[in-house]
Amino acid sequence: MTLPTSELTPDNCAFLMIDHQVGLFQFLTSMEPLQLKNNILGQAKTAKAFDIPVIMGTSWPLGPNGPTMPELVEVFPDVDIIDRPFVNFWNDETSRKAVEATGRKKLVISGLATEVCAAFPAISALREGYEVYVVIDACADFNKEITEITTQRLAAAGAIVTTWVAVLAELCANTQVNGAHIGTLLAHHMPQYYAAMNNFLATAEHADEVANGIGLTGKPPIQ
Amino acid sequence: MTLPTSELTPDNCAFLMIDHQVGLFQFLTSMEPLQLKNNILGQAKTAKAFDIPVIMGTSWPLGPNGPTMPELVEVFPDVDIIDRPFVNFWNDETSRKAVEATGRKKLVISGLATEVCAAFPAISALREGYEVYVVIDACADFNKEITEITTQRLAAAGAIVTTWVAVLAELCANTQVNGAHIGTLLAHHMPQYYAAMNNFLATAEHADEVANGIGLTGKPPIQ
Amino acid sequence: MTLPTSELTPDNCAFLMIDHQVGLFQFLTSMEPLQLKNNILGQAKTAKAFDIPVIMGTSWPLGPNGPTMPELVEVFPDVDIIDRPFVNFWNDETSRKAVEATGRKKLVISGLATEVCAAFPAISALREGYEVYVVIDACADFNKEITEITTQRLAAAGAIVTTWVAVLAELCANTQVNGAHIGTLLAHHMPQYYAAMNNFLATAEHADEVANGIGLTGKPPIQ
Amino acid sequence: MTLPTSELTPDNCAFLMIDHQVGLFQFLTSMEPLQLKNNILGQAKTAKAFDIPVIMGTSWPLGPNGPTMPELVEVFPDVDIIDRPFVNFWNDETSRKAVEATGRKKLVISGLATEVCAAFPAISALREGYEVYVVIDACADFNKEITEITTQRLAAAGAIVTTWVAVLAELCANTQVNGAHIGTLLAHHMPQYYAAMNNFLATAEHADEVANGIGLTGKPPIQ
Amino acid sequence: MTLPTSELTPDNCAFLMIDHQVGLFQFLTSMEPLQLKNNILGQAKTAKAFDIPVIMGTSWPLGPNGPTMPELVEVFPDVDIIDRPFVNFWNDETSRKAVEATGRKKLVISGLATEVCAAFPAISALREGYEVYVVIDACADFNKEITEITTQRLAAAGAIVTTWVAVLAELCANTQVNGAHIGTLLAHHMPQYYAAMNNFLATAEHADEVANGIGLTGKPPIQ
Amino acid sequence: MTLPTSELTPDNCAFLMIDHQVGLFQFLTSMEPLQLKNNILGQAKTAKAFDIPVIMGTSWPLGPNGPTMPELVEVFPDVDIIDRPFVNFWNDETSRKAVEATGRKKLVISGLATEVCAAFPAISALREGYEVYVVIDACADFNKEITEITTQRLAAAGAIVTTWVAVLAELCANTQVNGAHIGTLLAHHMPQYYAAMNNFLATAEHADEVANGIGLTGKPPIQ
Amino acid sequence: MTLPTSELTPDNCAFLMIDHQVGLFQFLTSMEPLQLKNNILGQAKTAKAFDIPVIMGTSWPLGPNGPTMPELVEVFPDVDIIDRPFVNFWNDETSRKAVEATGRKKLVISGLATEVCAAFPAISALREGYEVYVVIDACADFNKEITEITTQRLAAAGAIVTTWVAVLAELCANTQVNGAHIGTLLAHHMPQYYAAMNNFLATAEHADEVANGIGLTGKPPIQ
Amino acid sequence: MTLPTSELTPDNCAFLMIDHQVGLFQFLTSMEPLQLKNNILGQAKTAKAFDIPVIMGTSWPLGPNGPTMPELVEVFPDVDIIDRPFVNFWNDETSRKAVEATGRKKLVISGLATEVCAAFPAISALREGYEVYVVIDACADFNKEITEITTQRLAAAGAIVTTWVAVLAELCANTQVNGAHIGTLLAHHMPQYYAAMNNFLATAEHADEVANGIGLTGKPPIQ
Repeated sequence: MTLPTSELTPDNCAFLMIDHQVGLFQFLTSMEPLQLKNNILGQAKTAKAFDIPVIMGTSWPLGPNGPTMPELVEVFPDVDIIDRPFVNFWNDETSRKAVEATGRKKLVISGLATEVCAAFPAISALREGYEVYVVIDACADFNKEITEITTQRLAAAGAIVTTWVAVLAELCANTQVNGAHIGTLLAHHMPQYYAAMNNFLATAEHADEVANGIGLTGKPPIQ
Repeated sequence: MTLPTSELTPDNCAFLMIDHQVGLFQFLTSMEPLQLKNNILGQAKTAKAFDIPVIMGTSWPLGPNGPTMPELVEVFPDVDIIDRPFVNFWNDETSRKAVEATGRKKLVISGLATEVCAAFPAISALREGYEVYVVIDACADFNKEITEITTQRLAAAGAIVTTWVAVLAELCANTQVNGAHIGTLLAHHMPQYYAAMNNFLATAEHADEVANGIGLTGKPPIQ
Repeated sequence: MTLPTSELTPDNCAFLMIDHQVGLFQFLTSMEPLQLKNNILGQAKTAKAFDIPVIMGTSWPLGPNGPTMPELVEVFPDVDIIDRPFVNFWNDETSRKAVEATGRKKLVISGLATEVCAAFPAISALREGYEVYVVIDACADFNKEITEITTQRLAAAGAIVTTWVAVLAELCANTQVNGAHIGTLLAHHMPQYYAAMNNFLATAEHADEVANGIGLTGKPPIQ
Repeated sequence: MTLPTSELTPDNCAFLMIDHQVGLFQFLTSMEPLQLKNNILGQAKTAKAFDIPVIMGTSWPLGPNGPTMPELVEVFPDVDIIDRPFVNFWNDETSRKAVEATGRKKLVISGLATEVCAAFPAISALREGYEVYVVIDACADFNKEITEITTQRLAAAGAIVTTWVAVLAELCANTQVNGAHIGTLLAHHMPQYYAAMNNFLATAEHADEVANGIGLTGKPPIQ
Repeated sequence: MTLPTSELTPDNCAFLMIDHQVGLFQFLTSMEPLQLKNNILGQAKTAKAFDIPVIMGTSWPLGPNGPTMPELVEVFPDVDIIDRPFVNFWNDETSRKAVEATGRKKLVISGLATEVCAAFPAISALREGYEVYVVIDACADFNKEITEITTQRLAAAGAIVTTWVAVLAELCANTQVNGAHIGTLLAHHMPQYYAAMNNFLATAEHADEVANGIGLTGKPPIQ
Repeated sequence: MTLPTSELTPDNCAFLMIDHQVGLFQFLTSMEPLQLKNNILGQAKTAKAFDIPVIMGTSWPLGPNGPTMPELVEVFPDVDIIDRPFVNFWNDETSRKAVEATGRKKLVISGLATEVCAAFPAISALREGYEVYVVIDACADFNKEITEITTQRLAAAGAIVTTWVAVLAELCANTQVNGAHIGTLLAHHMPQYYAAMNNFLATAEHADEVANGIGLTGKPPIQ
Repeated sequence: MTLPTSELTPDNCAFLMIDHQVGLFQFLTSMEPLQLKNNILGQAKTAKAFDIPVIMGTSWPLGPNGPTMPELVEVFPDVDIIDRPFVNFWNDETSRKAVEATGRKKLVISGLATEVCAAFPAISALREGYEVYVVIDACADFNKEITEITTQRLAAAGAIVTTWVAVLAELCANTQVNGAHIGTLLAHHMPQYYAAMNNFLATAEHADEVANGIGLTGKPPIQ
Repeated sequence: MTLPTSELTPDNCAFLMIDHQVGLFQFLTSMEPLQLKNNILGQAKTAKAFDIPVIMGTSWPLGPNGPTMPELVEVFPDVDIIDRPFVNFWNDETSRKAVEATGRKKLVISGLATEVCAAFPAISALREGYEVYVVIDACADFNKEITEITTQRLAAAGAIVTTWVAVLAELCANTQVNGAHIGTLLAHHMPQYYAAMNNFLATAEHADEVANGIGLTGKPPIQ
């Protein structure tokens, strides 16, 4: 059984975002592209919100795999993206050392494609005793069945397969302290939540108080 | 492997119903809303039928998450609903103490959303040695894939992921003793069973005897 | 092309609810039973709300098809249910005369099973010049593909295939006059609408005014 | 058969965007919310790009239906949103006159929910001789089956049921003249197109020339 | 619009069963094979029950398409199966003359594969003024999408696309006369109906009377 | 991990077929009824072919659950069906003793509904050290999601969840010895296999030899 | 109704293959890419087999849409591919004149994306009186729903929406004359047919005769 | 948990390809045949590319199961295919000794059908201490549900269930050494990758260099 030793906190984990490259993004269609882009950015901004170390990698960016998604680069303008010849990120010394340099023993991993770029380092890290979380909805594959098989493979190997929202929520821990993070990120990346929030702000008796509490700027206009 | 030490009985478990709030209900659409509401009430009335302790929680009820579903409150007019600032119900001292006060070591949990409100306390309770049953069909998420991933995560962590009907049936144990509970609850919450029951009562030779046995009031009219 | 000559109004249509019998309901599983029952009752209560004439039929109620659903009978305690030997409701003189007696030239039809009990009279009525609306989501079949084929057959024959909510909304016409009908029926039969309504009533500045406007009794409690 | 008399041009059509309100958006879940919001904004920005008259409506914005989506309002800060008591937009004199004032005989309609807010005015307008295009992927309903039934109903009534991208492409007509519109809108609203575009710009020999041609600002960085 | 001039009766139609050959059956997998075989036999026994003329054809039976399904041959031991070199059954003089010899102007057609063996003669017969019913659930194709496209093509051409159960029910017309046909055929080919029937016969007050009425032999044993 | 100690053989297992009653069959629609009936009979005839002890149970057969499926009773005319008041077959002393009397430590279980009638005794037997195989495709539930959750629960508890064909194949072991069993059962219950077999027999050079080898009687006729 | 005036023959039609470009192919994922490529080549080789005129077009091939698929170019090394600035192929004078030069009044069209590149010229050609066949399974879109909507739009406009196999079969007409075309193309592009053919050739009594008849070279080896 | 002791390398594994026979291929339709054939060849060519020992088996090739797929035989003209009477490959002494002769302790298995031909030897090999990888997407079954159940059974037994692309990528290890293998195999078997590659080669500044690096012959022509 895979029962993590403790909860994720901003202090005990590092995020690995591997090969989120435009050439791969355009044809790895196991997930609707709008959803995939949304979730990748959701995971990225979660890292940023909690100031968690992020390590990024690419494979063959000058070839058809292309550069890292520019919208992801924009979130992390200062992160060096490590290109590598090895299929498995973990077999690349520079990449692995970047992980070790964080000193964190919990790794939160996503990658394109799941079955290779996320799964291989996840399994390698598990073998070395890391606790591994795979953010499966920030990953994609040639087809849906591959992601399902890979999810099962990762779970069998001892990885915690989860979602970007669950990771965000676990890091938030206390809404009185971190409510703005979860409020803002869900508002930007879960449109039904944004709609519900706007509906509330437009009609609720205590809307201003709530809006201030989570750092949103004012009520949207009612026509 | 996750083999429970014993069967669920009315004496050995407590039910945790976490964050079944109208604001969340309206946009957590991984399950058809009719089905979700039906199953939440099915789980609730199961607790009530067997007089099992129930602990209820909310998160941000004055904000867009809204109050607990009034149809659920109606089932438990006397249960205090514990509001908390912590994302994880288990990290809230009041909530956790309410669980401990029951003295039960088997917890039957559901919540909105599964990936956070049900899964986090389930994992925490498992870590402390509880036996945890998650009533997955009384839970919902932003989408179906999230529920599937969370189911797998919970199963991997050692939770027994199950359904409200299976919990009801396990608690009934003996139909000669508890037949009316299972008969009434299925009739109210599984329309195909209700139809079959009505068909039987309308046409069967020994319908009155059966009707009396399960406390239903008379045969429906045949036109 | 099938362009109705005018809108549905309470004065220009009759509802035909054919063979909604418990024996058929239990095994016609093209639609989730909760949804099917919900929609049948939604259609029925729409007729009741607007005082529209309703004609009901059965086929072989003393055999395995069983009696009309008791929850439907409860909505129309005073409607005589016409049993008939003919497969096609329209070929039964008593049934057809009941339709003609209403003097209405727009027929709103549903039935179990769609492919026979709804489709056959719909096609016969079209041949005689009626405008026919089939409430496809208050119908069911042995499987989903059959409903899809029957929908296409009905549309090709000139029927307007629609839903119970669209019929309700068309009859309501003006929310200042009939808002309570649409508000109450959606609240009872569309749980996500009920949740949204309760969320609004619990939090909105002007909730009382709104609640009064649609005849709902008070705000639900906030915990 | 429904063969339009001519192609859509910026000069011959008006856009009707009806009841895209946050309260409805949050629970009309026939389409993934990310996709729905994306398509609504895609349709809106298409109107804006080609300077096409837009008429917007609401139903019960002070009640649980809530205000118009603020992200949509932001696209059209100067459009008056017409609130109405009539279910059918077309039965509201102010709304209908706003349409007539445009002098356009082709109407491009979307609305929440499709089965009521888009379908009813579409059918009314067809009855009065308008050519009606329904942008079905900028609409949503209580469930997917309702949208499918409504699509068939609209097509049978003579509406051209289409998508926001097809409308955009038909209006663009000539890529040498309007290429920037289609390029920019697809880049912002079809992430796989954006990825392909970025991949091209990062690697192609003649990337600068292409980028200039469609008004994009420079190549994204390669790591 | 496609509104048949009259109802199907045993006297006004002929059945065409084209190319139901084992070699095609084994790999035309748009429908679950159990369902496909069941429906083909259901259609065949419907013809037999009402003594309707049947014309059968094959294409390349000595090659990989193989012989006609032996279970189908068993239903019609005396029908000559016409082999032909033409892809379109209607272009084969022997086949077409066999149809004309029946003198019937309503044709009930099925075939493997739908898109060719059923659709081509259906369209040819429509062009010559026949009324054509295609029993779409006794047909199959290389994949499901092909059947859907062909259904739409046939409906657009004016064919009535329907199911074997709807054809059976239309031919039955009056259950007092033909009840045994519909009862027996559904019992043998719709297992949920058979279960309901057996449940009824085992428990109902008036089971013997019902069983006699439809020619079923006795109640099944209760354990 | 769940690695069985040995292969299934006719000498080391008993089959438990629990509550395959017509009243339950008619409304447990997680699986297409044709498929469900087919698989139940496939499992039953496998037991018969290899002379494996079978224990059958019912719950409330005089009520709406109805008698055991007559087509199943026909396979086992001499097996006593044990009725019981306990929900869990394993808690009924008569039932459990019937199992113990076989002396077998491998149990092959199916039941209606899976989540209760198959799952509960499976879990109880696992707790007592039996090796448990659940024939999941000879089981059904109120809906598909329930079967999926129950499959996962059973696998987590250590049951081997499998299919009737896999059980048949494992028992056959050597096609030179038991080929007729697998040939005959697949021919009767997997129509695509039957079609392939008939195609082969009709066209193959050495068809007679093959037909004799598996006990089939002659080639089917070619038209 | 859309009933073609005559059957497709090699002499009465032209094929339009529009914008099958690698840049579009890689991200238009409404259809599994293997299937899409297979069908595009199936349509192309059908044209080639029957020596039917083919007109090919591109849009922005030097930009991210990329060049025509090289595997398609390989089928038609001598066809000039017409690049155009107009979104609608029909509005481009060079393209339209190329169609007119064939003198054919039946057009068989496919394109990427369906909703634009196939649908727009199809509708324009219908307006000018052509008979239009759209090979929908050699087309693709941003998602599956778009193809479904476009299929319905095209059918409503009077196009015959069909498949590449149906087109091939209609052109073959007589298997004694054109059997090799259908045999070879299905063998190469329908693997289940190829498997059936190989199974037949390996085992059938008269395999050589059949193989010679369709121009296949010898039986595959049996191990 | 199933954590492999090391990565797959060309030196530490053997491939078992069991019963990929044309008679089985044609009716095992859990996976689209194009995809299944593609993946079987993908796995085969991976073995060939890395010179990994391959063992092939058949069951009843002279009967309806037919010979091994000729396209697979073509990949391995020198591999002897071992026919066996045992259902379980592992119980056949010749087959098992062929495995032992390789000296490899990691087995990469696929077969038709999964539930029998792949699963049985996988479980037997696990019992004897081998590390087993099942290439689930080069396997198929009578239906999709069977593959899902078998996947879960195999994972529970300790097998690593994976895909042919993941195996290929793990064997490649370093793209500077083995890039041509992964490039060529994906280009031939993943059409969206091939399209992306062609798009890149047609437009990129450094296309020649990239093409040379992976052994592709030149840029495809731009029209």
